[in-house]
Amino acid sequence: MSAEPTGGRRPGRPSGASGSRDRILASARELFARNGFANTSMRAVASGAGVDAALVHHYFGTKQQLFAAATELPVDPMVVLGPLRETPVDQLGRALPELLLPLWDSQSGTGLIAAMRSMLTGTEVPLARSFFRDIVVAELSQRIDEPDGTGVLRAEFAASQLMGIVVARYIVGLEPLASMPGEQIVDMIAPTLQRYLTGDLPEGPAR
Amino acid sequence: MSAEPTGGRRPGRPSGASGSRDRILASARELFARNGFANTSMRAVASGAGVDAALVHHYFGTKQQLFAAATELPVDPMVVLGPLRETPVDQLGRALPELLLPLWDSQSGTGLIAAMRSMLTGTEVPLARSFFRDIVVAELSQRIDEPDGTGVLRAEFAASQLMGIVVARYIVGLEPLASMPGEQIVDMIAPTLQRYLTGDLPEGPAR
Repeated sequence: MSAEPTGGRRPGRPSGASGSRDRILASARELFARNGFANTSMRAVASGAGVDAALVHHYFGTKQQLFAAATELPVDPMVVLGPLRETPVDQLGRALPELLLPLWDSQSGTGLIAAMRSMLTGTEVPLARSFFRDIVVAELSQRIDEPDGTGVLRAEFAASQLMGIVVARYIVGLEPLASMPGEQIVDMIAPTLQRYLTGDLPEGPAR
Repeated sequence: MSAEPTGGRRPGRPSGASGSRDRILASARELFARNGFANTSMRAVASGAGVDAALVHHYFGTKQQLFAAATELPVDPMVVLGPLRETPVDQLGRALPELLLPLWDSQSGTGLIAAMRSMLTGTEVPLARSFFRDIVVAELSQRIDEPDGTGVLRAEFAASQLMGIVVARYIVGLEPLASMPGEQIVDMIAPTLQRYLTGDLPEGPAR
């Protein structure tokens, strides 16, 4: 790893490639938590870590991948959300849990749930907020912004039902919901999600 | 407080009325977490605390009230769930959030959310499981057990949407959902809850 920069070395900091990686991750966590995902640049993360921005890209790739690494998400969120861009909006209510349930139930799901759980507790809440607002909601809301200005709220209600499944199935472990096949959960919540995403809204919700 | 028993005194334990109260609460937390609400008797809590069962009733009233105190819920869950017994099942989907949103948004809601949040983390998860399974789900499921054997699952899906609102609105604080009037949240989720509680179920869910 000859990419290790020298300008960023400060006394007392770990040096070498793993030192740089750790400093980048620490800087990313701090900035994502303080300023959110959208308002944090790769350059700012690099600067906070005392390294060159190119090194951040070299180690972590995209900003989404850096976020995943910083929050210990075992999966790049765009790997999950990306394919949904091809899904017609009137099928998103089913496609979303069809993607997520198998992922949550998988090996990497354990780490994912652990990451979500630690994001819900204490100091990591700003990371959770940024994750939902700047990544999940931002990805979906423009496609379901009908009538104008309702997309964010629609996406948030869908997210609320999905988070509720994470809590009930994986964190609290309510039986039989915790052990039933994922496809049955999809069948149960797909109409809910579709209504939130594209159904009629009650009078009133902020538009 | 002359009710302080002498038989329960052991070396090193706090004595006096507040000592008894603390020991009862510690015993209750331990037993509720290990055995669940349903399988924990007031007598067992008393025995674990080295006091007479009458003293537990004297200090805390019902088992629900003891649970609320042990988990630092600022509200006895039966005060919330009790009135729903008068509500026709086809109106529960609206009545439930109409009761809960104002409560969560209130002064005591802050403590309630804090209690819920700490129940979702680490060692207190068994308390959360017992709370939902033995108190919330047990209270609702018999009334919505149509067809036979579906009541628990129906109640759990409704609970999942309500927990998701707690997470999105109060813990993560997703805007605009976090700041919108509670009535608008009720309007949005009432049809979801009603479908879970009394609507058609997809093929398959364990009955």
